[in-house]
Amino acid sequence: MSTIAFIGLGIMGSPMAVNLTKAGHQVVGYNLSPERTAALVEAGGTAADSIAKAVAGADVVAVMVPDSPDVQAVLAGEDGVFAHAPAGALIIDFSSIRPDVTTALAAQAAERGFRLIDAPVSGGEAGAKNAALSIMVGGADEDFAAAKPILDTVGKTVVHVGPNGSGQTVKAANQLIVAGNIQLLAEAIIFLEAYGVDTAAAVEVLGGGLAGSAVLNQKAQKMLDRSFEPGFRIDLHHKDLGIVTSAAREAGVVTPLGAVVAQLMVSARANGDGGLDHSGLLRGVERLSGRPTQ
Amino acid sequence: MSTIAFIGLGIMGSPMAVNLTKAGHQVVGYNLSPERTAALVEAGGTAADSIAKAVAGADVVAVMVPDSPDVQAVLAGEDGVFAHAPAGALIIDFSSIRPDVTTALAAQAAERGFRLIDAPVSGGEAGAKNAALSIMVGGADEDFAAAKPILDTVGKTVVHVGPNGSGQTVKAANQLIVAGNIQLLAEAIIFLEAYGVDTAAAVEVLGGGLAGSAVLNQKAQKMLDRSFEPGFRIDLHHKDLGIVTSAAREAGVVTPLGAVVAQLMVSARANGDGGLDHSGLLRGVERLSGRPTQ
Amino acid sequence: MSTIAFIGLGIMGSPMAVNLTKAGHQVVGYNLSPERTAALVEAGGTAADSIAKAVAGADVVAVMVPDSPDVQAVLAGEDGVFAHAPAGALIIDFSSIRPDVTTALAAQAAERGFRLIDAPVSGGEAGAKNAALSIMVGGADEDFAAAKPILDTVGKTVVHVGPNGSGQTVKAANQLIVAGNIQLLAEAIIFLEAYGVDTAAAVEVLGGGLAGSAVLNQKAQKMLDRSFEPGFRIDLHHKDLGIVTSAAREAGVVTPLGAVVAQLMVSARANGDGGLDHSGLLRGVERLSGRPTQ
Amino acid sequence: MSTIAFIGLGIMGSPMAVNLTKAGHQVVGYNLSPERTAALVEAGGTAADSIAKAVAGADVVAVMVPDSPDVQAVLAGEDGVFAHAPAGALIIDFSSIRPDVTTALAAQAAERGFRLIDAPVSGGEAGAKNAALSIMVGGADEDFAAAKPILDTVGKTVVHVGPNGSGQTVKAANQLIVAGNIQLLAEAIIFLEAYGVDTAAAVEVLGGGLAGSAVLNQKAQKMLDRSFEPGFRIDLHHKDLGIVTSAAREAGVVTPLGAVVAQLMVSARANGDGGLDHSGLLRGVERLSGRPTQ
Repeated sequence: MSTIAFIGLGIMGSPMAVNLTKAGHQVVGYNLSPERTAALVEAGGTAADSIAKAVAGADVVAVMVPDSPDVQAVLAGEDGVFAHAPAGALIIDFSSIRPDVTTALAAQAAERGFRLIDAPVSGGEAGAKNAALSIMVGGADEDFAAAKPILDTVGKTVVHVGPNGSGQTVKAANQLIVAGNIQLLAEAIIFLEAYGVDTAAAVEVLGGGLAGSAVLNQKAQKMLDRSFEPGFRIDLHHKDLGIVTSAAREAGVVTPLGAVVAQLMVSARANGDGGLDHSGLLRGVERLSGRPTQ
Repeated sequence: MSTIAFIGLGIMGSPMAVNLTKAGHQVVGYNLSPERTAALVEAGGTAADSIAKAVAGADVVAVMVPDSPDVQAVLAGEDGVFAHAPAGALIIDFSSIRPDVTTALAAQAAERGFRLIDAPVSGGEAGAKNAALSIMVGGADEDFAAAKPILDTVGKTVVHVGPNGSGQTVKAANQLIVAGNIQLLAEAIIFLEAYGVDTAAAVEVLGGGLAGSAVLNQKAQKMLDRSFEPGFRIDLHHKDLGIVTSAAREAGVVTPLGAVVAQLMVSARANGDGGLDHSGLLRGVERLSGRPTQ
Repeated sequence: MSTIAFIGLGIMGSPMAVNLTKAGHQVVGYNLSPERTAALVEAGGTAADSIAKAVAGADVVAVMVPDSPDVQAVLAGEDGVFAHAPAGALIIDFSSIRPDVTTALAAQAAERGFRLIDAPVSGGEAGAKNAALSIMVGGADEDFAAAKPILDTVGKTVVHVGPNGSGQTVKAANQLIVAGNIQLLAEAIIFLEAYGVDTAAAVEVLGGGLAGSAVLNQKAQKMLDRSFEPGFRIDLHHKDLGIVTSAAREAGVVTPLGAVVAQLMVSARANGDGGLDHSGLLRGVERLSGRPTQ
Repeated sequence: MSTIAFIGLGIMGSPMAVNLTKAGHQVVGYNLSPERTAALVEAGGTAADSIAKAVAGADVVAVMVPDSPDVQAVLAGEDGVFAHAPAGALIIDFSSIRPDVTTALAAQAAERGFRLIDAPVSGGEAGAKNAALSIMVGGADEDFAAAKPILDTVGKTVVHVGPNGSGQTVKAANQLIVAGNIQLLAEAIIFLEAYGVDTAAAVEVLGGGLAGSAVLNQKAQKMLDRSFEPGFRIDLHHKDLGIVTSAAREAGVVTPLGAVVAQLMVSARANGDGGLDHSGLLRGVERLSGRPTQ
């Protein structure tokens, strides 16, 4: 069993930290807004009021924060992990951030004697609670091996996809596919509604064939119900599409559907839907088609 | 058990007719190129050399042909089903055609004392062989009920989605989703290859989360292998996207991703890929990104 | 001087017929709603209350109606031009319709001993009034030569672009370019407004460089003023984009921007803007960007 | 008459510096590759071998370099303009760069006692040689007034569009429109070629109506001839579309055509066309449509 500092106890981080605690690890949690530590403490973990205190004595430092600058601050900031963690600590960054930022931070970590893997996850709040996340890992073989037992505690599909940054690259691809699959489902549903088809029946039969997908399973009903409480917010998916479209552009990879869905995500936010679940992309199809939900 | 005329014994129709025969129905098959009747005959069915002979004495007439004009010819043509089938026969049209053509043919069928349901399928050659098709059915309640045992013999997910035409409308939506999901997967794979990620590992982990889909399960490996023998040909998917984009346009439904993938399907054909499996959309992403497979 | 039957006295046809009258031709006009003949009569022309009466004794039959079915009805309908016009009459179809319909009608005309050219125009109501239209002509050399004096009377740039249908093909290309140029200008203007730039000054300087265009000259001020009375209605431009996208699809030509602007035109109509000038595409950019004009 | 340091004597800068010299100004030019100073010297100007020497004694410092980092280096670099120019010098940045970079540099300039206006241009090499550029100026009223005589010497349409950064914002909009207009023209031309229309005649008639534009006037013949020597290179236009798409995204402005043409520009570069004139976008339409020029 390890002593684990867990930085970032949001919708995803909190249940992950709880699951690690339940598995017998000693988990010390830190969160910017301290009230978010309650679930961890209730599960038997400890709350710290600074990163310095959280990482003191840790073998493993887990990080789960929203964006690239947040990870940079948590790790490389004045009072951050690099400044206070014990030498040799294994840093597992579960956050979804820019691959180039991960690569740079991994290099800085190595210079300071730390080991770092990028381990962004897919599967949402449900996946975090049920320890059923998909985890895409970038880093050295031996660091992946060292982290594997901990990753298996919070995830179901844990795969080493390449050196540092690769986890983030795969996560970027994941977000491209997910955003597009959501948008396609939304287009299909509004199309079916326009023709007066029994959409619940249609979703059932669509799910049984080649159109079936995790997105259809998890998001179609939300769309039919116009029930868009998050879940995964459009604001965050917008950030992720910024990562993938920039990275694709830099590599000279053309992503015609990716480019369009990135625009539609901008449109969703511009219309005030940034705080909705990403299945709320349906509302954009409604607007384009002159069929807004009242 | 029924006496079933089965018109159209192609990649899909042949194994469906075989499965109906194996289930105990008396199946008489007809196909434009008569050598396609061999599998049916081997399974215990009968071959006819005209539609007139195939439908003589049939309770049920099943049709599985490529496009709207083909169904029109088979049903309403001079020597077609309407001219020769016994009064009261139940016509099951498994073909994927324009919803408005189906609706018109159903009305003509009714005038002539036939019953007709549209029952397009999803699931591909494997689904046809394994009797695991998804079948989306449009038609009257009682006709659906009458056809249900036969549909259950060839399909796994059999759903009544509304009146005549609705089956085709749902199939159109299905093809929109499938084409888009394939294209998104292709964009993701070329993106990952450009960054040197272990794509086989990436596909595994993508499949475990919200990016998972039937398309990913069935098409990712073909893409990684650049192995595009059909399967479902781009030429046919192109036809289907013509149906969905026209129908959406007429209904005033805006389908931003649908419109783009329809263009990419045109591009695939223009570049000589029309005979490939639709997973061959990957080659379009390669061309756009200056990374053609040798 | 010729005796000219002019069928279709709408926003475009009426001033064209007037200009032909003023040039000394004997013009007999017909319009479905007869009150539209007033301007022609005032200018010295004659009104007829049927196509048959309009074309009696005509050397030339000019047609200017909205869509393919209208031209088919006017020419090939029971009481249409083919049934009543004098043998050898020269038919000039100024309407903007499907190239394949034009080609078919030209063949029918030839069978009946008529000559037909397709002569769609660009330049709008102002161009029609000022006899400054661009006219793109498809047809035989000798028919073009015969029609040239009449075309020069209503147009400024009159060009023979190929055999029958070519005029319509060029008009389709024209409508593609115009729709796209309008949409791009709209995107630019909303972008500039979002950044608080002096848009009137910006339009001036944009017009002086490579971004300058007839669209910018004629439509930018309407956009800045949110003043979208037609002019050329979105409903009609939508019809035209249907022609060009279908024709491109059939020829295997990929038009990425054309496909997108066609979708945006659908969206404009779905949002109730079909009756506005096509510069009203700006409202779609406003909606997408969460900046609707009150 | 002023003493003008001119930094950056490329395709655009060199003829501009020459025109300023011919107008009677004392121009001292500097360019990274010194052989580019020949034309200026021949016209009566002077060559300097460092920025420091170029700006010594200058009233005005003109800058015309490719990208944001270049301007940052020229102005704020160790041996740059800020370090060596006389107090109070008026800096005219003709480069096309990111609006936020311009704004930041203008603030730095002000802190150091310089005045700076952003004055990007449109009109290409021909516009530079003929002193017929469009110049879109951002900056303070009095700085614009001070620069006006110099701007009028190299430009024909010189407009003050707002405070610092506004010139760059308008230039970004300009590049959006130009890229899109080029792409639309390319789509139209390939469409016309596919239908065997006389494209030279078509271009003539298109230019006479609402489809007319500076792009059509300057680029259509190059497309018909497949003659793509620059002119303005795709690589540079790609950079500019990066500016406008980022800025639009940040402002929540949705640019559907802008997003697609940005992808097509990426594709052009990925296919090795980055060094061609931007009218070379035609080659992308050819590739998509399976009609590559041999």
